[in-house]
Formats: sequence, structure tokens, C-alpha cells
Amino acid sequence: VTTVPDDHDDPGSGPAVETIGSDHPRASPADVARTLVGSGGQATLSTITDRPPGHPFGSLVTYAVDGDANPLLVVSEMAEHTRNATRDPRASILVVEAAPGGHDPLDAGRVTLLGELRRVEDAEQQAMTDAVVAAQPSVGRYAHFRDFSCWRLTVASIRWVGGFGAMTWLGPDDYRSGTIDPVLAARGPVLEHMNTDHGDACLTIASHAAGGRGLATSSMVDVDRFGTDFWATTPAGERLSIRVPFSTPARDTDEVRRLIIEQLQQARTAQ
Amino acid sequence: VTTVPDDHDDPGSGPAVETIGSDHPRASPADVARTLVGSGGQATLSTITDRPPGHPFGSLVTYAVDGDANPLLVVSEMAEHTRNATRDPRASILVVEAAPGGHDPLDAGRVTLLGELRRVEDAEQQAMTDAVVAAQPSVGRYAHFRDFSCWRLTVASIRWVGGFGAMTWLGPDDYRSGTIDPVLAARGPVLEHMNTDHGDACLTIASHAAGGRGLATSSMVDVDRFGTDFWATTPAGERLSIRVPFSTPARDTDEVRRLIIEQLQQARTAQ
Repeated sequence: VTTVPDDHDDPGSGPAVETIGSDHPRASPADVARTLVGSGGQATLSTITDRPPGHPFGSLVTYAVDGDANPLLVVSEMAEHTRNATRDPRASILVVEAAPGGHDPLDAGRVTLLGELRRVEDAEQQAMTDAVVAAQPSVGRYAHFRDFSCWRLTVASIRWVGGFGAMTWLGPDDYRSGTIDPVLAARGPVLEHMNTDHGDACLTIASHAAGGRGLATSSMVDVDRFGTDFWATTPAGERLSIRVPFSTPARDTDEVRRLIIEQLQQARTAQ
Repeated sequence: VTTVPDDHDDPGSGPAVETIGSDHPRASPADVARTLVGSGGQATLSTITDRPPGHPFGSLVTYAVDGDANPLLVVSEMAEHTRNATRDPRASILVVEAAPGGHDPLDAGRVTLLGELRRVEDAEQQAMTDAVVAAQPSVGRYAHFRDFSCWRLTVASIRWVGGFGAMTWLGPDDYRSGTIDPVLAARGPVLEHMNTDHGDACLTIASHAAGGRGLATSSMVDVDRFGTDFWATTPAGERLSIRVPFSTPARDTDEVRRLIIEQLQQARTAQ
């Protein structure tokens, strides 16, 4: 994973970021990519058009994923993107995280899956169409029309961007080895809730994890099944990035609630 | 504009759609495209990557538009899409309408703008960057970084999709001649409000416009500065598409409110 200090030419004059707890386990980029693709259902498909020739053409699609985490689309043979893929199968799908409102749109996580888009072979056509309808009921409105069929993007290359300045390329084996993280899938509401309603708890947990240093501000910026992340500032204006692990991986959002309360209790006990 | 009955191979067994009032004025596809592009700020950029070679690559961007309705982006020279555009300027931008919740994602209007993406020339660089920051304040966070600059997509071809089955291509002159329609820009909330809180009014207006026929159901499906559109069913199950014009074009959503009340009063008076 590339982060701002590694590859981003940031001439900002602010103090350097200190990272604390970065050795603790966290969801891998492959986990994040799999979770994001698995949580979504609407995406942008990019294909190659001939109007003008060779231009990349973005269009809106709904999708589901097959057992190998390849996107499946039910599309009309009359649609531009289907005509394009028939001529040239090179394609990609961009899935963007549904971000909590009010932030920079570019804070949202996103994944671009690149590969070849081809009609699913006849023997699998019905089963794959049914899988898409099961995942995306609105597709059932038209999946049975004669001109519609199920197409598969076989993923060959993956670009993940975690927000401003965090990004990496993944190979298809990496991507497929990722685990869908149920906590990461719900991170938007968890972060919103913690930062809106429990700002004091965020400050207490982060201060404890930072070795008992007094902090001026702290907000929870990420959460996955292994722990929580905070951005904080010291009274002197230094910026800290702090990872706080859970005592055990969380299996769902109920467990996350319990584990965050545990982090808070440990921080309070130490005060 | 192509609509389902004209080009879509729909083998559904439902009765044919009858259209009423379709000669009344309405926002043109160019108006709709200009309005959608002018209302948005987040889009998918498609460029041509070399991983794998020649694949279209979708990425998330924020944008503003210049005086010729060409998208302007402030991007890092280290970002994949910028590297891609430097090698090959062929690109497109997809803007998707922020749809009212709960519907099929593919009911949303969307526009694909195709053209060449190039760095804005030095003489205009500061002014265009400032224009993007003014329209998208979050861009101000990083627009001054050394590796960022403003790029312009010069629009050469436009694909508009108005929802399931309504679509057309536009040329650049058509597109640039379009008018931003302030009512269309607010259609989501207006439709939501009318269908949720004023279903009786929708039925009364549509019944009157359908020549006093009794209708079983009616919902408002579109609104622009020139009038309202309804989908309705008769007690026998026939489906109608009904356009009801305003007495004068609406200049804003306050006027729309007044003009819809006027449509309702005329319908009631005739009963």
C-alpha cells in the first residue's frame, strides 16, 4: 500500500505525520477491494467505443459477483457498452464506496477492476443471470427480455484507492485471496456514529494508545475487523496516525460495538 | 430521442403504451445533458491504461465546467488517469444523476461526455484552477500542490441516457446549445414530494389531461421548466404516458409549485 509520505509529492509545510501502532494487523488492500466490490451493486463500466474511435466510454451498470469475485452484468445487446465489448472485450469496472455525506467525494474508497468482458457461455447463462437477479432484484424487470444476457468481466488487474494518497495495484490472485470484512462493509455508519456522538471516547482511546500523551483532537478515520484507526493532533499541532487493535477480530457490527467499548474501558482504567 | 417503443426489443406481453400530450414542449436532450453536467461535481473519468495495455480505466474525479461546458479537472501528474491521458488523450466523463432513493439505480439519468483530455495551457492554468476550486471547495485542499494542475476534456461527442430505454447521441454543437433547466435540476425532490404526499393531485391532473378518463393509478415521473409527465394506468390495465404543459415556463422551484397547483385547479374546475 502506498501512502502519502511514500509517493506523494506533498509540498505542504505542515509537520510530518507520526504513526503509532502501524504494526498491528489490519484488513489488507485485497480484503478492502473484495469488501468494496462485494458491498456494491452499482458501478461504472468502461469500454472502448467507436464514437470517436478508440475512446474509452463510461456507462452506468448494476452488477453482482460470481464465486471468483468477477463482476457479472445483465446487459442488452443493443446497449452501447455491449456493442463496444462485442467489438473489443477490453473493459473495466469502477466501484465507489458509498461515503458518509458531507466529506470530500475523493475520500471515498474505490476499486477499478480491469479485464475482458465477454458473454457468459450458454451452459452457465441461466445460472449466472439468476445470480445477478438474486443480488440485484431490479434486474429482474428486464433480465428475461430476448435482447438481454449475462456477461462476465474476468478480472486481470486491480487498482485500489483508499482515499486521498493511499493506493496500490493488486494482481488477480491477490484480489481473489482477499476476505470480505463485515466491519469494513459497515465502516461509514460506524465512523459517523463514533465521531458525531462519541468524540470524547475517540479522544480517550487515541490518547491512551499514544502513550498517555495529551491530544488536542482525535477522530476515528477507519475501522475493520482487526481494529480502529484515528487521526489526532497534539496541543503543539503535530499530526498523529494511530492504530488501536481489537483483543479479538470482530465478526459483525455488534461485536465491533463491544470491542470499541472495551478499548474505551482499557483507556479509562489506565488513566 | 429514442424511447422503448421505438428501438427496444421488449417481448413483454403488456398492453401497448398510449401517449398523450407528447407534442407539448419539453426540455431537449441537450438541455437535460447540460443540466445534469452542470448540477454534478463527481464523475467517473475513463482513460486508456497500459495495465493491461489499451484497457479503458475508470477512476473517480471531481470536476467543474468551463464556459463552453467542457469539464475541468484538477489532477495530480502522479495519478493513473493523468499518466494515462498524457500517453493518450482519448477520454470520457460519466455524470450520473443523484437519483431519489429506493428506485432502480438504472432509472437515473446519465451523460457520457467523450473527447480529448489535455492539460490547460499555462496562460489559462491559474484561472481555470481557480474556477474548479470555486465550484468544488474540497479541491482547494490540494490544488496548490506542485504535482497538481488543471486539465480540460474538450467535448466532441455526447451520449445521453434518460433512464431505461430513453437515449440519444448529441453532437458538440447541440450539447453546447442546451440550456440549464433549474426545474430539471431539482426534479428528484419534486417527484419524491408529489408522489409521496400528493398522490391524489397526480391522479386528478393526469385524469383531466387524459380527457376525463377514469384512471386507476398515476405517478409523476418527470418535471422540467415546461411541464410535468405522468405514467398512469386505466382500470382496464392500459398504460398511459401523459405530458401536461405549464401555462408559462417555470424559472425556479417556487414557480413550479405554483404552476402544479394551477394544473390541479384547472383539473378540479373541469370535473
